[in-house]
Amino acid sequence: MEPVFNRVAMIGLGLIASSMFWGIRRAGLANEVTGYARSDETRDTARRIGLCDRVCDTMQEAVTNADLVVLAVPVGVMEQVMQDIAPYLAEGAIVTDVGSVKRHVISAVQPHLPSHAHFVPAHPLAGTEHSGPESGFAELFDHRWCLLVPLEDTPAKQVARVRALWEGLGSYVDEMDADHHDLVLAVTSHAPHLIAYTMVGVADDLRRVTDSEVIKYSAAGFRDFTRIAASDPTMWRDVFLTNKDATLEILGRFTEELFALQRAIRTGDGDMLHAYFTRTRAIRRGIIEAGQDTDAPNFGRERS
Amino acid sequence: MEPVFNRVAMIGLGLIASSMFWGIRRAGLANEVTGYARSDETRDTARRIGLCDRVCDTMQEAVTNADLVVLAVPVGVMEQVMQDIAPYLAEGAIVTDVGSVKRHVISAVQPHLPSHAHFVPAHPLAGTEHSGPESGFAELFDHRWCLLVPLEDTPAKQVARVRALWEGLGSYVDEMDADHHDLVLAVTSHAPHLIAYTMVGVADDLRRVTDSEVIKYSAAGFRDFTRIAASDPTMWRDVFLTNKDATLEILGRFTEELFALQRAIRTGDGDMLHAYFTRTRAIRRGIIEAGQDTDAPNFGRERS
Repeated sequence: MEPVFNRVAMIGLGLIASSMFWGIRRAGLANEVTGYARSDETRDTARRIGLCDRVCDTMQEAVTNADLVVLAVPVGVMEQVMQDIAPYLAEGAIVTDVGSVKRHVISAVQPHLPSHAHFVPAHPLAGTEHSGPESGFAELFDHRWCLLVPLEDTPAKQVARVRALWEGLGSYVDEMDADHHDLVLAVTSHAPHLIAYTMVGVADDLRRVTDSEVIKYSAAGFRDFTRIAASDPTMWRDVFLTNKDATLEILGRFTEELFALQRAIRTGDGDMLHAYFTRTRAIRRGIIEAGQDTDAPNFGRERS
Repeated sequence: MEPVFNRVAMIGLGLIASSMFWGIRRAGLANEVTGYARSDETRDTARRIGLCDRVCDTMQEAVTNADLVVLAVPVGVMEQVMQDIAPYLAEGAIVTDVGSVKRHVISAVQPHLPSHAHFVPAHPLAGTEHSGPESGFAELFDHRWCLLVPLEDTPAKQVARVRALWEGLGSYVDEMDADHHDLVLAVTSHAPHLIAYTMVGVADDLRRVTDSEVIKYSAAGFRDFTRIAASDPTMWRDVFLTNKDATLEILGRFTEELFALQRAIRTGDGDMLHAYFTRTRAIRRGIIEAGQDTDAPNFGRERS
């Protein structure tokens, strides 16, 4: 593939950035990738495993002469990072991000962008419960969606280059506005994560059921929740604090619905429960038909 | 392996019964397995795919001369099935079940048991979101737990034979009392399932987010919930109606905890959220160390 960018700078070297690097290398999407992480330990790890063509000790060094800068840091520190790199951005540089919320990131980043640079917000819908520079792999974005949230005044040409990068990484790309993005993600990701964290917390608190019982007898259901609830705490703290309104709205609807189902259990309304559980099966079929999950027995997992 | 039973009768031919049959055959645990299902269609399917050595058109025929009868039907019909088979049980026959709740099943089955037979309640903690006679596979129970809930007056010898069957099917076996079983399962399985059904229902109701968006952009989190929420509606209706008290207790605690987290989001208490999310990671590590799930990237799933 023809390189889409000459030099890509990764700010932050966690799961997403490291997967992007391996994917960029797999497809030849850039001539050089520089990388920066705040902690010495992460930079040392990156150098040891060959993550990035060049690991830099300062953000300034990493972004100098980069035609794409990727903000791959928790949403809560995007503003500070943007302020720090702004003076060193090259003429015509594109800044993009991988944050899970978009309205907040745009309001945090956009005001600090120099007029000679462009900002193309992005959000790859891919991840695992693992974090850190050693957790990345080139296939993470294959057949997953990446949502772009272009600003009104950004030239189509710059948006197209970011799209080409994500398509080169194996993703499908869609565009939508920031508020709609944040609502859709509150439904499909943010509220489910909070619910999973909550359920795992409840289990841990319950003194009459020991942790070892919870662990041994974690059937399908709870086991899946624990996987979700093992995701990076800093990332998720920031997601909830910066997509507060949409998340709280969905959680409000969730609680309302949960109360209706609890009431059906209490009053013994089996017909209501059966109809509800039948309806939710259809959505599952849709996801499998859309190729976003496998239909293999035992959830497609290898048996241990 | 030496057969543990001479003739095993499967009443109900869904995911669990069909997996038991293939597992019994794999390990040579019985000389003959008979099978019965209420619907003509299920019996026809079973005959076509070779499920059971002999598929019978009546329960009576299936249980005659069986030394083990497995009640593999939804919890809500256990009592009726037990009433129907009682007159035909052989001298010394063991009846067992695979129901997800135990207090209710014991009170439904035990009163109808003839004095010359024994009841050994059991619950294999294994399953997939698929149901029906074609969904079974011999490996379903490998390295999973099966919980036995022996009654006080059951001779140890009969309990040991049921244990030997489950160990032969590849499971680990533990024993506990019925109330404790029902509470542990409310935490590790029943409440999580209701929560997943609820969240999928909320997504389906939300008019501003289309179903196709929910399906396309179902990242980790919601996608896992849809898998859980695709489980058999009849089975789950019966579970909630028959483990009402423990499920409602856990859901009450869950709601309380969810409100505390919602409040932390609303008031911007990032420290509380971060501490909570850090604590839940430890349980996940425990599950992986206990061999009850894999630690593979992308949740160990094959990439589509």
